[in-house]
Amino acid sequence: MKLHEFYQQVRDISMQMVSPLETEDFIPQPAYFASPPKWNLGHTSWFFEEMILAKYQRNFKPFHPMYNFIFNSYYNTLGERVSRQNRGSLSRPTVAEVFTYRKHIDAQMMSLLDGQELDPALTALVMLGLNHEQQHQELFFTDLKYTFSVNPLYPAYTKRALCEDVNEDSDDFITVEKGLYDIGHSGQGFHFDNERRQHSVFLEDFEIRKSMLTNGEYIEFIENDGYKRFEFWHEEALAWIKEEQITSPMYWQKREDGWYQYTLAGLRKINPAHILTHINLYEAAAFAQWKKMRLPTEFEWEAAADQFKWGQRWEWTESAYLPYPGYQKASGAVGEYNGKFMVNQNVLRGGSVATATGHSRKTYRNFFHASVGYQFNGIRLVRS
Amino acid sequence: MKLHEFYQQVRDISMQMVSPLETEDFIPQPAYFASPPKWNLGHTSWFFEEMILAKYQRNFKPFHPMYNFIFNSYYNTLGERVSRQNRGSLSRPTVAEVFTYRKHIDAQMMSLLDGQELDPALTALVMLGLNHEQQHQELFFTDLKYTFSVNPLYPAYTKRALCEDVNEDSDDFITVEKGLYDIGHSGQGFHFDNERRQHSVFLEDFEIRKSMLTNGEYIEFIENDGYKRFEFWHEEALAWIKEEQITSPMYWQKREDGWYQYTLAGLRKINPAHILTHINLYEAAAFAQWKKMRLPTEFEWEAAADQFKWGQRWEWTESAYLPYPGYQKASGAVGEYNGKFMVNQNVLRGGSVATATGHSRKTYRNFFHASVGYQFNGIRLVRS
Amino acid sequence: MKLHEFYQQVRDISMQMVSPLETEDFIPQPAYFASPPKWNLGHTSWFFEEMILAKYQRNFKPFHPMYNFIFNSYYNTLGERVSRQNRGSLSRPTVAEVFTYRKHIDAQMMSLLDGQELDPALTALVMLGLNHEQQHQELFFTDLKYTFSVNPLYPAYTKRALCEDVNEDSDDFITVEKGLYDIGHSGQGFHFDNERRQHSVFLEDFEIRKSMLTNGEYIEFIENDGYKRFEFWHEEALAWIKEEQITSPMYWQKREDGWYQYTLAGLRKINPAHILTHINLYEAAAFAQWKKMRLPTEFEWEAAADQFKWGQRWEWTESAYLPYPGYQKASGAVGEYNGKFMVNQNVLRGGSVATATGHSRKTYRNFFHASVGYQFNGIRLVRS
Amino acid sequence: MKLHEFYQQVRDISMQMVSPLETEDFIPQPAYFASPPKWNLGHTSWFFEEMILAKYQRNFKPFHPMYNFIFNSYYNTLGERVSRQNRGSLSRPTVAEVFTYRKHIDAQMMSLLDGQELDPALTALVMLGLNHEQQHQELFFTDLKYTFSVNPLYPAYTKRALCEDVNEDSDDFITVEKGLYDIGHSGQGFHFDNERRQHSVFLEDFEIRKSMLTNGEYIEFIENDGYKRFEFWHEEALAWIKEEQITSPMYWQKREDGWYQYTLAGLRKINPAHILTHINLYEAAAFAQWKKMRLPTEFEWEAAADQFKWGQRWEWTESAYLPYPGYQKASGAVGEYNGKFMVNQNVLRGGSVATATGHSRKTYRNFFHASVGYQFNGIRLVRS
Repeated sequence: MKLHEFYQQVRDISMQMVSPLETEDFIPQPAYFASPPKWNLGHTSWFFEEMILAKYQRNFKPFHPMYNFIFNSYYNTLGERVSRQNRGSLSRPTVAEVFTYRKHIDAQMMSLLDGQELDPALTALVMLGLNHEQQHQELFFTDLKYTFSVNPLYPAYTKRALCEDVNEDSDDFITVEKGLYDIGHSGQGFHFDNERRQHSVFLEDFEIRKSMLTNGEYIEFIENDGYKRFEFWHEEALAWIKEEQITSPMYWQKREDGWYQYTLAGLRKINPAHILTHINLYEAAAFAQWKKMRLPTEFEWEAAADQFKWGQRWEWTESAYLPYPGYQKASGAVGEYNGKFMVNQNVLRGGSVATATGHSRKTYRNFFHASVGYQFNGIRLVRS
Repeated sequence: MKLHEFYQQVRDISMQMVSPLETEDFIPQPAYFASPPKWNLGHTSWFFEEMILAKYQRNFKPFHPMYNFIFNSYYNTLGERVSRQNRGSLSRPTVAEVFTYRKHIDAQMMSLLDGQELDPALTALVMLGLNHEQQHQELFFTDLKYTFSVNPLYPAYTKRALCEDVNEDSDDFITVEKGLYDIGHSGQGFHFDNERRQHSVFLEDFEIRKSMLTNGEYIEFIENDGYKRFEFWHEEALAWIKEEQITSPMYWQKREDGWYQYTLAGLRKINPAHILTHINLYEAAAFAQWKKMRLPTEFEWEAAADQFKWGQRWEWTESAYLPYPGYQKASGAVGEYNGKFMVNQNVLRGGSVATATGHSRKTYRNFFHASVGYQFNGIRLVRS
Repeated sequence: MKLHEFYQQVRDISMQMVSPLETEDFIPQPAYFASPPKWNLGHTSWFFEEMILAKYQRNFKPFHPMYNFIFNSYYNTLGERVSRQNRGSLSRPTVAEVFTYRKHIDAQMMSLLDGQELDPALTALVMLGLNHEQQHQELFFTDLKYTFSVNPLYPAYTKRALCEDVNEDSDDFITVEKGLYDIGHSGQGFHFDNERRQHSVFLEDFEIRKSMLTNGEYIEFIENDGYKRFEFWHEEALAWIKEEQITSPMYWQKREDGWYQYTLAGLRKINPAHILTHINLYEAAAFAQWKKMRLPTEFEWEAAADQFKWGQRWEWTESAYLPYPGYQKASGAVGEYNGKFMVNQNVLRGGSVATATGHSRKTYRNFFHASVGYQFNGIRLVRS
Repeated sequence: MKLHEFYQQVRDISMQMVSPLETEDFIPQPAYFASPPKWNLGHTSWFFEEMILAKYQRNFKPFHPMYNFIFNSYYNTLGERVSRQNRGSLSRPTVAEVFTYRKHIDAQMMSLLDGQELDPALTALVMLGLNHEQQHQELFFTDLKYTFSVNPLYPAYTKRALCEDVNEDSDDFITVEKGLYDIGHSGQGFHFDNERRQHSVFLEDFEIRKSMLTNGEYIEFIENDGYKRFEFWHEEALAWIKEEQITSPMYWQKREDGWYQYTLAGLRKINPAHILTHINLYEAAAFAQWKKMRLPTEFEWEAAADQFKWGQRWEWTESAYLPYPGYQKASGAVGEYNGKFMVNQNVLRGGSVATATGHSRKTYRNFFHASVGYQFNGIRLVRS
């Protein structure tokens, strides 16, 4: 696919995704992490305007003098901005005005990309912008799910809940033998700077489960007092459980006739055969302890990834999010994309039902704080 | 005016007030006190449904099973509810659905009120509901102003800012002689339970200023280091100034060419001749100290109110919000209207540019915490 | 008694009060309001040094360059200071050093007071300093009680708990007839500026109970679900109950064999006949509501005070702490003593078992925030 | 040395360390992390009582029924406890009582250890208890330093500040070649479970500096606006800088004549040649970025540790604190020693001037949250 075609495809998908929404749904932000759909649409457009058009377009003029302030997420290089938790305070610009902004940016971008030999640096930036937009497409689903979940009306975004039956071989483990493994991205295709450079990691023997954990297996953990037995939990996890009075995963609730969970199709009875999701690292690690197993390191995961099916859940690893050997942040705003988060974050691997098609790969590193459960994250077990 | 005509009039005004809004403007709640317009419209309708229709209508059925949960404000008698700070988290019901809800309630209410001799208790409840709605009409303005003010685009709701030129006799004081004065409501017209019963209060001699304070007089205070000289301020006011880094009234900002304030007509240069507003009690008391004067008690204010023009600003008094002699809370939900707030609140008297026509009277007691500046409140000085 | 004799007496009492303590007991401050005994001893000495010696002593030199910083409580006039919640962070100066400081101040003060005709302004300041020290003698008991109460060893300060049998006429009410009453201090003896000036207040008929509430009466309230029935409570009281999970008064705990309370003599079984104490205003008001009575205003209390026994509990009134007619703060540090607290505080009248002998009087106004229960405060009921 | 001799030696050192203190110094806890000396002395004795005597002593009786509640630190297995931030609220037991407790435990322990063939499991527990006490000896210094530092009198614990001249070869780097390195403890001597098991790690080529960073080098960073240039800092570090208004390392202050730091010998002028300390991970990482270098991983550090002098500062690594291959928590309370902290913590290697002689080793893994600067931690740089 040509770059301008890929551009058009990704941008169109963002607009298709919001088509089931009411105007009102574009606005609220019930938690600092749950950005409103309107902000996501504006921010991804601003990314192209500020990172590409401002540099490559002759006589560039910002679409609106305040949009850099409103739609900048976390780029200190690019100046002051609306603080993250206040994105839901803004009724203006209206949804229609943000759509107009998107069309304006698309027109500018298409005329930049069309009909000329592209500078490789420009191509790289456009690819970054499109992958960035795909990341926000995923966030659109997870943010909207959170926003709808706090509404006592439990609105449905879609008719199909984002979950899938688990494959059947739940007890099968894949054996991986000790030795040096190549970790990280080595090819020419698009990848983030945090996947580089490819390097050797020595792994000991381990076995990794073919299938992911199911709801049914996790219910067993709950019903065996899993949330009350401190010996399975990290110390800071116990503080979280106590302070937030946690007794089950995010979006779950127990009713008289069993367990329910809020899904993007509304409140639904939990199917024990479905793959578990919305588990944070504390819960994933405690479950593994209970099973006398553990979570994989990100290196074990990558070394074995060709041998199991992945892509339905972001999978927690035991690894902290740290730079690979030789990692250097780029200069300027692009350098703020990944490197500055490399402390107190944990790596997830794979991709989820909410991830854009073709966006992830086996070297892809997602990262979140241990307490985050609003992503479609799950558990894959390892034993030594 | 007949009761059903008054009903229709008040309800129509609420709808006229929201007509300049975009759909998006109905949603955000940037602070716990700034309820979204959608919630205000739903809540005032719920008040009629729950307080009147549920009792007086045969075969009453709630319009929606969850609306009691969503639109209850603070009535413990009426059950659990969305917590106050989360009203802005709800995109649903949509604005259109709330409009439908209003129409449904109006139809039910009109058929209840129409064509029959009304039970006095029912009349009293309807009057309470309408005065309640008028209070929310005022809150609509103050809440919306706050919401728009935090938006870097400074949207305008109207072309006319809600402020007025001060009358000219700023140095005139009215003399009131010592003696017993009747305080509180004694007549038959509508009034709140907190205005009753009428009782005698002994007042010493005092003088009260005919006009309210102007922006220009307050600028003089600021420029004389008013916010830095601790001797004028209450101890808890100093803590507020320090913690919030306060250097001027709410909505004010200093630019190179002078003082500006956000108004419902957008950001505007401050006119020194206009009546000061958005002053909290800490600021009002400090200004009075600086002037070597004081604020009136609510009794002084009421005793003198026939002799000056009022109604443009809610006026801070020195009085705490306490029950009058013989005060008894009504039983049931109606009893929660006023009495349970009679601790740590301060009385304001008068009414403001945002108050519905005919809603206030000289015995009317409004009340807020000392730190509240988002009402259209102002300062009238007293000297002994 | 001559002034220097009174000085010696008050200062001696402070030292006698700390004699049962271990050195360790002088240090901790488990809550911002519970100042350590060491700080209380240093602060009351600093008061004389800074308010009197610095002005009246020739060639005055501070005892220690940092003590003004360490022992200033809240006098902005007198500069920066250790923040209130950090008084328990300081192991130094040692207790012995603070004793030395006291002796030094006493020697200076005695030579100032001895053998000369005293300037009336000086006399007034010394009397203020001594009454100030008496207030801290009371705080010594209430602060220490709190500090000991959080210790799982429940240390005893004394063999005698600070409580007393209630007198027997609990159902008697005193009738007061409507009319103008003189309120406030008019004589020459020592009094605080907040008791002045004497002025007329018009009161309606009321009846006030001769005796204070007992533990037994309050237990009845608890056992009638008093803490669960929202209709008795102020709205902010309900927030306090919910947030702090309050189910009984401060220092109370229910054990298998009944109610216990921590006292300065250790953990003791509650005697139902004893006068209730450690009640905050929220609780006092809720109890009164339950009884279909109310708390007195401070004016009603003062008008009737000659007719009942008082002085065992500080008694909550319904009145907010506000200035009397003609009140003016003094200039300088002395002016910070009372006036700057006249917002969001509530008046207590009487005096308690912890109050220094002769310190209180019927015009005395104590004041605390509605949530404060660590004083020896109690309930006296009124009915109209 | 025999075990009971080692026991006596370690226990004696704890007592010698507190000998310069005043009784008052044993009490305060100005921050949750700065445990009072009294608590440290009690807790280390409780560790022997609860982990060893309770199991191995016939007819064991606790010394005091509440000491398990008071002196338990974080062992959930061993029941409820005084919450960490309230250790400074307890004046009782007195210091003398804690000394008595220590003597009692010592007598019991000596009779247990003396004159018999020891069970290897018992020996291991005693060694754990003694190494645990040594860790608290280090914490004694760091906690006391913090407590004294917040006192405006800046008390001195000792005449000798805990710092040392840096060795002179600051620009020398040691080259380490790529390959597989053995990491972790393999021998029989005492070690913690987190050092096990020894395993291979593949490292790429790197160079590590022989000497640690000096104060002078860090001052250069500060004076080059190091704390203001966001590009060097992690995102959460910027939040920390902004919220806490950080402009220099902990304990530093700028005066007219230059930089000072609080030391255990009082406030002292900073010597630029001394080794930098009290740096948190945010600062260490930002400094390294500024120098275009980085911090070592814990594996790089261990692989090179034989080639440089270490032991004066705990050295920040880039590594998160995670289990080694095959790590299993022990069952029971001992299993809570290390494993439950293996999330969101960062590894430090080496040991510091405050570390007990012989306590650390090259495989030793200390760990703290990235924001912790109150340890004697420092910076060693690496380049690739």
